[in-house]
Formats: sequence, structure tokens, C-alpha cells
Amino acid sequence: MQAKLDKSHLEKLLKRADGVADKKASMAVLSMALLNFEPEEKTLYITTTDLEQGFRGRVPADIEGERLSFCVPCRRFLEIIKDFPEEEVYLLKEDSRLIIRDEEEKELYELSVMDSEEFPSLPEFYEENLLEIPGKVLTELIRSTIFSASKDEARFVLGGIYLEPMREKGVLRAVASDGHRLALLDREVLGLDSSSLKEGFIISKKGADMMADLSEEELIVKFGFVNNYVVLFFSDGFFFTRTIEGSFPDYRAVIPQDFQNKLKIDRKLFLDACKRASNVISEKFKPIRLSLTSSEITISSPEGDTSRARIRLSAEYEGSPLTISFNAVYLISALENMKSEEVEVKINDERSPALITGFRDEGFLYLLMPMVI
Amino acid sequence: MQAKLDKSHLEKLLKRADGVADKKASMAVLSMALLNFEPEEKTLYITTTDLEQGFRGRVPADIEGERLSFCVPCRRFLEIIKDFPEEEVYLLKEDSRLIIRDEEEKELYELSVMDSEEFPSLPEFYEENLLEIPGKVLTELIRSTIFSASKDEARFVLGGIYLEPMREKGVLRAVASDGHRLALLDREVLGLDSSSLKEGFIISKKGADMMADLSEEELIVKFGFVNNYVVLFFSDGFFFTRTIEGSFPDYRAVIPQDFQNKLKIDRKLFLDACKRASNVISEKFKPIRLSLTSSEITISSPEGDTSRARIRLSAEYEGSPLTISFNAVYLISALENMKSEEVEVKINDERSPALITGFRDEGFLYLLMPMVI
Repeated sequence: MQAKLDKSHLEKLLKRADGVADKKASMAVLSMALLNFEPEEKTLYITTTDLEQGFRGRVPADIEGERLSFCVPCRRFLEIIKDFPEEEVYLLKEDSRLIIRDEEEKELYELSVMDSEEFPSLPEFYEENLLEIPGKVLTELIRSTIFSASKDEARFVLGGIYLEPMREKGVLRAVASDGHRLALLDREVLGLDSSSLKEGFIISKKGADMMADLSEEELIVKFGFVNNYVVLFFSDGFFFTRTIEGSFPDYRAVIPQDFQNKLKIDRKLFLDACKRASNVISEKFKPIRLSLTSSEITISSPEGDTSRARIRLSAEYEGSPLTISFNAVYLISALENMKSEEVEVKINDERSPALITGFRDEGFLYLLMPMVI
Repeated sequence: MQAKLDKSHLEKLLKRADGVADKKASMAVLSMALLNFEPEEKTLYITTTDLEQGFRGRVPADIEGERLSFCVPCRRFLEIIKDFPEEEVYLLKEDSRLIIRDEEEKELYELSVMDSEEFPSLPEFYEENLLEIPGKVLTELIRSTIFSASKDEARFVLGGIYLEPMREKGVLRAVASDGHRLALLDREVLGLDSSSLKEGFIISKKGADMMADLSEEELIVKFGFVNNYVVLFFSDGFFFTRTIEGSFPDYRAVIPQDFQNKLKIDRKLFLDACKRASNVISEKFKPIRLSLTSSEITISSPEGDTSRARIRLSAEYEGSPLTISFNAVYLISALENMKSEEVEVKINDERSPALITGFRDEGFLYLLMPMVI
């Protein structure tokens, strides 16, 4: 068997496959890529899985010889292709080695192969009842919220992202929260009614990141929920991830409907000031204090530290004078992920959650619990 | 006391000072910067030391009030100044705090200070009998050789760089070696005879890196060897480092004078091919094999690994056909640090050191021991 492929195309596919392969796997085969050479389809399929997630992609290949499949170490194969100096790559199977070379055999690599029988079989998916959604919308839903998911692996329900189809509104919603803060983004999508997406489901951070990456450059992706799996079809293949069992907390109950006090402030100035103030705090949880009066706000770091900051910014504040403290890291991550020139921070009192929104961040809201220091 | 300073100027000085301060010090004062405010000189002096090395730099300061000195945490002070949003910085001493603020007090920081008495006293140096040398020449001497110094802290004599004044030739020579390879650079300098540099001396990697950084942007630096210290005067201050005791091995004895075989090859092509071949090697010490014939060379990774590379390059080779193995990391680091389009590799046999030079790397040579695999 000999196959001729385009280097850049193969490299792109291997990068995606490598994102799913399990590098630290106790089973060696989970760090492998399954290669299926299909001469009639003129296609090489590459499959990787860590048992929780799976990826299969295809790349055009000029194949001479019989159908063939075997496994190779995915990361090593990627490294060889990434640095390969020619645009055309030849793949040959000889005995128990995959030969990777250029036409003139000036550049030649060998990789040990493993039998394809060792590779776990993946669940089968059909492209039925899927939701068609612009790739960049799915990417935005994930990237605008996932940063608020819990880093604590023990809190597995909060460790991922909750995707909730809201058929009556024609909206797909993404929610992520670690209990201290919550990010939510709504995006209108067409065709929710006829899709297999009926109820909300939770996917892991690794699965969500992979979906965001795969969708980023796709015009349209197809997306569905089948037997505890979320599956994503993109132009050159599909990806699936097992959903996280358990129900997402009732986040609606924690979002206040009314607020007494409202701050309007330039997002970039506010963000930079919060960063500067938090930089002088020695503690791991970095509490910064906002003192709000009608003409300006003062951002300060806690007393008693060996270094302290106090920064005054002009802002528009409607409400009673108030002092409230937040974890600077949480405040900064929200402001960094927003796009609006000006943000609105709505507050009731120093012990109730604050809500951050912005005019140019349509459909987005960020709920943040104060710290009591 | 109140002082007004230029932010960028102060930031640059603090960065240099912070390079010497000992961040992991068991004595807190070694992570501090000593500040001396001199109203008559309109100057702030900043001093740091880790006891092996010391730095003192100055920055213009508009000072009102009496002379004053105290210590502040160097890294924290740098962080505050680095992000300071105004170009003018005001420094004030109030009780046991240093206040850092803008004119309007919109931005204000406080730092706890420590008594200047706690700061260790530094040796005194006079600007006498020093060698004047272009800053970029000293930087080049250090950076072109230091990468070959030993990473093994136990081999302290080989852990630094050997600087050897060769008065008869009017040359300053830098040599670094870890026993497996040796890099050497000669640079002509004027005034060696009248300088205090009589014999060679060894300085640590930290000291040498600092000297290279400090000299990089200086037209002329002054440089001398006084009582087991090397001292470097630059435009805004001075730096010293204690020399490493012990004698540098007789490196001259290991450099062969004659070679039977000579390879000429494009540096960039050779470098990239060595990188690609070494990338597929699993072992930590990456042996690559060069097979040399008159028309081409073949670079290959060891047999028996799960992946193998074999790369053929055209080259000019004069000598008998030969196969020789090198640690790829050592070969790559030399080729990366050289500038010539074409390099010359001179070889006697597969067990003797090879010598790498290049036309555009004047005064430079790299000696490399083969591996026997």
C-alpha cells in the first residue's frame, strides 16, 4: 500500500485528532491514531479516542493497493508531519512499520504500527435530527462561558458547560458556574424544534474546548444529543463526547430580577485598574474592594498587606454609596471576555450577587458573588 | 521626603536591579532593593545583592526634603511601576510606608519599608585600570559561548564562562565547556595592556548573563578584575560578581591542530535536518548519526526506536567515507548560535572531537565530542 497526501491537510487533521488522544493513557492504544486507508474513496480516515470522547476525520489520499488499517502513535506522527519539509507526503506500509517519506526518499521516517484490532470500537452516529448551527455561534457560546466553570474536578456537574435548548424562544443557551460566579450566553438559532435537542445537557471542559476549536472555522456544523453523547459533525468528520451525568443546579433562582444600584463604567479602564490593584495582593484569593459614590469609584486592595493599592476612576453611579468586595480574578475574567466599551454592574447590597452586562455583549450576563472580608 | 521620577526610566532600572535580587532568599533583605534618595545630586540610587553579586544603578529624581535611605521589596516595587498608568511617578516616605502615586492621587500604592541598616554593605570599587570595551562585544563574547557551560551545578568550574585576556594578541577570549563540547570566541580589544585584566577568571552563568544584559545597549562599558570580583561599570551604575575559584581546564590541549576529513554544508539546512531527526528520538540523550560520503550526507536516528528518521542532504565532503554520531542537542545548539551561511565540520575519526567553524563566525570555534553508540 502506498498513499500520497497533502502535507498541510494531513497536519491539520492530525492536530485535531491529537487533541482527543489520551497522552497520559494507561492503555497505550488510547495514545494511538487509527488509520484507515480507503482506496476506492481516495480517503484516509484518522480516528482517536480517550473512551470519553472520540474523533474521526478524513483527508483526501491517492491510494495504491488494498484497503488497510492499523494504529500509529498519534503525537509522534503529528510531530513528523508538522516538520516535514515537502508539500507531498508518501505513506507506505512495510512489514510492521509505517514509512513516511517524500517522493525522492531524501526524507524518510519509520513508525512502529499496532494492529487495528486493538483499537476500541466507537459508538455509531447518524446524521439525523441534528441542529445546524453556524460554527462561530457554537464556538462563541462555549468560549464566552466556559471560563466560569469550576476548576475543582470533584464538582463534576459544575466542571463543564450546560447547554440548554429553549425551543419556545428559539434560543440555545450556554451556562457555566463554579458556585461563586456564573456566565450565561443566549444565541438565537433556527431549527431547534426539529432537532434531537430537547433537554439541557452538560459536557466536560475538555469536550467543550474541543467542540469550540472544531467549530471555529466551519461555516455550519451539525450538532445533536444521542444516548448520553453529544455529537458534532463538521465538514471533514465528526466528534463526540459523553455528557456528564447529573442535573445542573437551578441557576434561574439565583439571578435577581431587580437591583437598587447601578454602575456604568468604561470596561477597559475598569479592567486595567482591577488588574493593577490585584497585582499587589499577596493572597491567593485576591479580594478587591469597590467603594461607589455618585461621581467616582475607588478600587482598593485589603489593608494589612505589605503592599496596598488605591485607584480612583470616574464612573456613572446611580444608587446609595456602597462598598462591596469581589474576587479580583473573577471580576477580571468577566471583563476580559466581554466586548462592550462600557459595562453595567447592577448591585443590591454588599452581600448579594452583582450582575454584569454590556450593550455590545448581547445575550450575555455574568453573575458574581461578593466576598465578605 | 517627596521625589518625582520618570516612570519608564525607573522601570528600566528596577528591572535590572530585580535581576540580581535573590527572590528565593532565606534572608528577606536579599529580595529587597535599597533606595538612596540624594536631593543634592537629584538622584535616586537603587541597590540589590544576593551576596555573590551586586548591582547599583541611578535614575534622575526631583527630590524635596532630606537625604533618605530604606529598603522595599524589589519585585513588588517593579510590578507596581511596570503597570503604573502615568509617566510621572511620585515617591513619598510616610511613617514606615513608601507611597507611590501620581500627581492627582488617583493612583496610589503603599509599600512596607525596612530599615536600610539591615541591607548588607557592598565591596567598594573604583573606576581605575578598567578595560573599556564596546558593550555589544562583551555581550557577544558571553552569549556566543555560555550555552556550552555545564548545567551540572556540582561541576562549578565548568558551570560558568572563562574570560581570558591574551595581551600579546590584543584579544579577549571567552570559553565555556561542559566536558562534552566547548565553545570559544576571540574578540580583538584595545587597551588590554593597561587594564587590570592580567589573568583569566571564571564567572558564574548568572553573573555572565547579567553582564551580557547590562552591556547589550551600552556603547562602551568598563570592565575589570579586582580582589576576586569582576566589576562592570555601565552608563547608569555598576554591577559586580564574585569569580568562581579554581582553574579552568587546559582547553588548548584538547583542540586538535590537524584534521583528515572536512565537511562543508549549508548551516540552515543542516540545522533543520538535525532538528527533525532528533524530534523522533525518544531517549533523553539524542544521538544522531552522520554518514558522510563525497556527494551527500545522511542523518539518521538510532535503530530500534519505535520511530526512526533518515534524511539525506547534499554537501561537500573531502575525506574518507565515515560514520560518526553526535548528541543532537549539542550539534543543534552550536548551529543555532552561529551566523554563517555555510559551516565547516572538521573530523579525524568517529572517536575524536570534531571542530565546527564558519566563515562569518570569525574568531569562533566549537569543539564537539562524538557519541559511541
